[in-house]
Amino acid sequence: MIKKRGLLIVVSGPSGAGKGTICANLLTKKNSIYPSVSTTTRKPRKGEIRGINYNYISKEDFEEKIKNNQFLEYAKVYDNYYGTPKDFVLEKLSKGEDVLLEIDIQGAIKVREKFPDGIFIFILPPSMAELRNRIVNRGSETKESLEKRFMAAFQEIKLIKKYDYFIVNDKVEDATRNLVSIIEAEKSRVVKNVDEIIENFRR
Amino acid sequence: MIKKRGLLIVVSGPSGAGKGTICANLLTKKNSIYPSVSTTTRKPRKGEIRGINYNYISKEDFEEKIKNNQFLEYAKVYDNYYGTPKDFVLEKLSKGEDVLLEIDIQGAIKVREKFPDGIFIFILPPSMAELRNRIVNRGSETKESLEKRFMAAFQEIKLIKKYDYFIVNDKVEDATRNLVSIIEAEKSRVVKNVDEIIENFRR
Repeated sequence: MIKKRGLLIVVSGPSGAGKGTICANLLTKKNSIYPSVSTTTRKPRKGEIRGINYNYISKEDFEEKIKNNQFLEYAKVYDNYYGTPKDFVLEKLSKGEDVLLEIDIQGAIKVREKFPDGIFIFILPPSMAELRNRIVNRGSETKESLEKRFMAAFQEIKLIKKYDYFIVNDKVEDATRNLVSIIEAEKSRVVKNVDEIIENFRR
Repeated sequence: MIKKRGLLIVVSGPSGAGKGTICANLLTKKNSIYPSVSTTTRKPRKGEIRGINYNYISKEDFEEKIKNNQFLEYAKVYDNYYGTPKDFVLEKLSKGEDVLLEIDIQGAIKVREKFPDGIFIFILPPSMAELRNRIVNRGSETKESLEKRFMAAFQEIKLIKKYDYFIVNDKVEDATRNLVSIIEAEKSRVVKNVDEIIENFRR
C-alpha cells in the first residue's frame, strides 16, 4: 500500500464568500482532517472554547513565540495578535495527516511564502451581486462598513492569481464536494509521492 | 458563470493495470467527456466499429498525415501504424469540451512533448503480484510473452515520474471516482481560468 503524504489545505477568500461554512461542512465529512486552531491574545468571548475557537495566550507569550519563529503567519488587529502556530501543522504533516487552515487572504499569502507545499484554495462568491447580498444579509454592518467590505472584497479577488485552485460557492454542498475532489486529486500527485511509489513496486 | 476550460485527459499505465476498464467506466458516468479515437492502417477485426474502435485508413493516407503533422503522436507496430489525430482534440478543447485519451506509456510521453497542457494520469496495479495475476488470468499469453510483459511493466512504472497523477486501481469504482476527482480539481485550477475569473467579477 502506498502511504500518501499529508497535506496543508489552506482555504481562503473574501469575507462573505462562505469559507467558514465550507470548512465546517468539510470537517463533518472528513474526520481525518485536522483543523488548525489560531492563537490569539484577545480575551475569549462568551461561548468560545479554548483549543476549539482559539488558543488564548498573553501578549508577552505571543511576542516570545514571534521571536522564536513559531508562527506560519501572524497579524496584529487593533490591539490583539492572531497567529497560526507552526508546530501543530508540521507535527500532523510529518505523520501523514492533513491539516485544514481557514484564513483571510493576506494571511494565506504569508503562509504561502513560508510553506509553498501547501495547497491554496480561493473561495469565490457566485457573483459580486451575490456577495453584496450576503454581506447585507448579515445585518451587522453599517452602510459605510458594508461598502468598505464590498470594495475590499473586489480588490481581494484579484489576488486569486496567487492561489492554486478556485471554488465558486453557489451551493455549500457542491462547493464542499469540489473541495473534497481537490484534496483527493492533490493526494494523487506523482511529484509528492514518487519515492514511495517506486519503493512500493521494487522487487 | 465562469466557463471552465476544456481538458485533455491522458490515461496511461502498464498493460494489465486496467486503464481500459477505468476509461470505459468513466465514459458511462460522464457523457460530457469525448474519447479520442485512434487512427490505424490495420484492417478492422470482427466486431470492431469504424469511428468507435478506430478510424481505419490506408498506409498512404497515414503517411500523408504524418507529413502534415496531423498526429499528436503515432507509432508503427509491426507493419501497422497507430496514431492520435490532432484535429479532433484541438477542436473539442477550443469549444471548452474535455477529451479522454487512453494510451500506452510511450505514446503518452510523446503526447506530453506536443501538448504539455494535458493532464497525465498513470494507472498503477495494487501491487506487482496483482499485476502478474491479471496478466496470467487473461490467459492469452504464452509463458515467455507473459514474463516479457511483466518485466516491461516493471520498467514502465519508473516512467511515472513524467506524469502528473497516479491512481492505484484496486477496485474499478474507486479508481474511477479518483479519476473524476482529478478532472474536477484540474477544472478548478486558477492558472487555467484566471482571465475568465477576473473578467467575471469586473464591475
